[in-house]
Amino acid sequence: MYKVDLNSDVGESFGNYKLGLDEEVVKYISSANIACGWHAGDAMVMDKTVKLAIKENVSIGAHPGFPDLMGFGRRDLKVTKAEAKNYIKYQIGALWAFAQSKGVKLQHVKPHGGFYNMAAKDAELAMAIAEAIYEVDKDLILMGLANSEMIKAGKEVGLKVANEVFADRAYNADGTLVSRTKEGSMIHDTELAISRVVRMVKEGKVTAITGEDIDIKADSICVHGDNPQAVDFVKSIRKALEDEGVQIVSIKEFI
Amino acid sequence: MYKVDLNSDVGESFGNYKLGLDEEVVKYISSANIACGWHAGDAMVMDKTVKLAIKENVSIGAHPGFPDLMGFGRRDLKVTKAEAKNYIKYQIGALWAFAQSKGVKLQHVKPHGGFYNMAAKDAELAMAIAEAIYEVDKDLILMGLANSEMIKAGKEVGLKVANEVFADRAYNADGTLVSRTKEGSMIHDTELAISRVVRMVKEGKVTAITGEDIDIKADSICVHGDNPQAVDFVKSIRKALEDEGVQIVSIKEFI
Amino acid sequence: MYKVDLNSDVGESFGNYKLGLDEEVVKYISSANIACGWHAGDAMVMDKTVKLAIKENVSIGAHPGFPDLMGFGRRDLKVTKAEAKNYIKYQIGALWAFAQSKGVKLQHVKPHGGFYNMAAKDAELAMAIAEAIYEVDKDLILMGLANSEMIKAGKEVGLKVANEVFADRAYNADGTLVSRTKEGSMIHDTELAISRVVRMVKEGKVTAITGEDIDIKADSICVHGDNPQAVDFVKSIRKALEDEGVQIVSIKEFI
Amino acid sequence: MYKVDLNSDVGESFGNYKLGLDEEVVKYISSANIACGWHAGDAMVMDKTVKLAIKENVSIGAHPGFPDLMGFGRRDLKVTKAEAKNYIKYQIGALWAFAQSKGVKLQHVKPHGGFYNMAAKDAELAMAIAEAIYEVDKDLILMGLANSEMIKAGKEVGLKVANEVFADRAYNADGTLVSRTKEGSMIHDTELAISRVVRMVKEGKVTAITGEDIDIKADSICVHGDNPQAVDFVKSIRKALEDEGVQIVSIKEFI
Repeated sequence: MYKVDLNSDVGESFGNYKLGLDEEVVKYISSANIACGWHAGDAMVMDKTVKLAIKENVSIGAHPGFPDLMGFGRRDLKVTKAEAKNYIKYQIGALWAFAQSKGVKLQHVKPHGGFYNMAAKDAELAMAIAEAIYEVDKDLILMGLANSEMIKAGKEVGLKVANEVFADRAYNADGTLVSRTKEGSMIHDTELAISRVVRMVKEGKVTAITGEDIDIKADSICVHGDNPQAVDFVKSIRKALEDEGVQIVSIKEFI
Repeated sequence: MYKVDLNSDVGESFGNYKLGLDEEVVKYISSANIACGWHAGDAMVMDKTVKLAIKENVSIGAHPGFPDLMGFGRRDLKVTKAEAKNYIKYQIGALWAFAQSKGVKLQHVKPHGGFYNMAAKDAELAMAIAEAIYEVDKDLILMGLANSEMIKAGKEVGLKVANEVFADRAYNADGTLVSRTKEGSMIHDTELAISRVVRMVKEGKVTAITGEDIDIKADSICVHGDNPQAVDFVKSIRKALEDEGVQIVSIKEFI
Repeated sequence: MYKVDLNSDVGESFGNYKLGLDEEVVKYISSANIACGWHAGDAMVMDKTVKLAIKENVSIGAHPGFPDLMGFGRRDLKVTKAEAKNYIKYQIGALWAFAQSKGVKLQHVKPHGGFYNMAAKDAELAMAIAEAIYEVDKDLILMGLANSEMIKAGKEVGLKVANEVFADRAYNADGTLVSRTKEGSMIHDTELAISRVVRMVKEGKVTAITGEDIDIKADSICVHGDNPQAVDFVKSIRKALEDEGVQIVSIKEFI
Repeated sequence: MYKVDLNSDVGESFGNYKLGLDEEVVKYISSANIACGWHAGDAMVMDKTVKLAIKENVSIGAHPGFPDLMGFGRRDLKVTKAEAKNYIKYQIGALWAFAQSKGVKLQHVKPHGGFYNMAAKDAELAMAIAEAIYEVDKDLILMGLANSEMIKAGKEVGLKVANEVFADRAYNADGTLVSRTKEGSMIHDTELAISRVVRMVKEGKVTAITGEDIDIKADSICVHGDNPQAVDFVKSIRKALEDEGVQIVSIKEFI
């Protein structure tokens, strides 16, 4: 039987600022990446989001970002390997306290935004992240871009890894994501996006922007809860996967 | 045999800013209160300070503060009970990650500055702190001002508590500290400070500013490492206590 | 002819976080209080909001707050007089740069949240704020709670002052606002709120919660743009005032 | 007669953290670059530093940095042109308020750390900075690395510019600084450093690391006040320049 995880970034509100339809999207996903207070989220939001995930039976992961609330952690920041390592540890620990308070374990760690994108390509940065996770808790799963440096680093240090794929993004022939600045980088057609994802899960293939089929491993599919349309898409993708005989389960169930 | 703990606030550097002679003072204390990145400290400093404490065989505690780096966490901030609870959890967790990475456990939690001072008098705030600690890890010791609301709250929720005393501060007849704004609030005479502390530990008594002897429980003595003179005072107090037959050990050894 | 100013807090978005229907509410007000990046707002938002205010021909004021983004500047923070003074100066200057870039002058300064509430009652804090404004630009108008310590301090240092009133709040017999925690503190009836405001402007009177009429000076009425209902209320109040022969103009036009 | 400016980064303390011997170094320089609260400095420090500069008759400039206190603004942060522009404006304005309070004008703007280094090479970023300065106050002088993109951008928008040179750094044949990671990048010999600077000022030449003489314009020499040795070097360089008939004056006096 085919199995896949659906993950979404949640807990990105901050103080008086509300962001994302967390209450809606968590009903349809199996893993929640919870912001840890650096690029988004705060202690109040983390507490609330951990409770929400538990209530909806969704596995919890840390979603650490750069110390850049102003830029929502999306901007490249040139950190050293030591900084990267300690930044990851700090944020895992912060989230751990809220999970621990409720008697649940963290399942995974998925870096956010600029941290994620830089580490996907930078082997040294990826290794810093992997080492940080391993040193804090070697049972945590590292979630990163499928086939990226993060996945390699995770395996190398001895972590379990989850290859993440995107339903709404085009891929280059080498398996990397087509830059958002390029034409055709986004898949706007819902039907097409769903069929691509189903194929990734069942066949391990996706058609690159250059036309050829490439291999891709899909352990977890990234979905969004920013707005009602995004949540509708999550419902659609979930239903389509189930109709195709794909079971939606947390990554810890099959990795 | 008499036993007492010597504690000091360390890990208060931040980024490019260096504060405190941590490397010196840790040689003479038994418990280190490590800043958690809100009022002071950052992920790099926390990592370094945890390693230093382990190297010098000093027990590690979290030293959570208000989210006020600009005011070094010393200013009163009117937080709700829920905010206090989650702020404490977040910071314990953050420090936990660094201790966990090195295979050591956190021994205690001592709130910092305004958080400490407000909670010493505010039963509800004290209870929020105690509950936060208990929910994250019920084996953590709550360190707070001797006989304060923090000690009461800690006991009430079922935590072990450590009564903290100050060598360089005068006490009111009700056991509270004489406000720093009042004359005679500080004990500047080293010999007097030491004899007062020895008496607190051995007799459980201290002479209040009003002249009468009052009861005081001294589980841990707060010392400072801000400057060479402060470190010299720590050496003196440690020697005096040992000469008087008082053993300096971490609070976990006798509480 | 009766004249009154309508003011609203705008520019409170931050980074990726959107807050308030600024584009809507600015169409109906005469003065905009723009957040300065400490409790809300950032450099991008300030630039955008200054442009918006200019486009809609609304006068611009600085809305400085405590350095507490996490608490949206609403929480009491015990700052010194010197801190208050420099915090106000910093934020006025920051906003000034954006106004200056567009060739417009700042009209006023209205402290935010906890800063506003504390200074309304604390003469020393109020004086610090007034002095800060005066030292940066003695032509700036200080907007504060009608009859509060802020108004007194502003007059004392030689600033022009704007008495601010609230349509949706009940008043005590001494002219202070009824605390939000007390029953009857909020005026939920739109018609009643409007008639109260019209009377404040035209007669300089309002009925206190205890039943008697008290004197109140209404130079500016605070309105909100948080949601569509709030914006509708602004339209209603504006129309009602105009129907009653009250002209809506910026405070600089009549103070 | 030869004229040159001596500039130093000051006002880099923050809250409880003290950094730099500002009181010493300002006695020997002609222009002070004052941190604006983002990478270093805060409102209290800015107020104090502006007063110090005025007392010592030193011209005041804004020293804006990236919003990265944790990294002291030294790390590359990939900001957009619009972000760069607004970040510069915000910080100039913040410092302006303190200068304005004392009745003095800002003389110049010198970006800090990562902002400076990135803009030296990135024409678009440099243009954003130059435009920001011009829009706030076209009389401000842009200080940047001699012959860099910043100097070009400043000239292009119509600003006066100050070419900054470094006494303790080696230069490549194209006029750029030799990267600190390369051998020979730092000039450790005080006599050599001084003679190089004197030659830059008097002849407009410096020997590149590759051995040939290159043209360099030296309007301002960057010196440091981090420690007593650095201050001694400032005294030495000042004396040597004066002995060589070079007058130390603020850039506004001769640019």
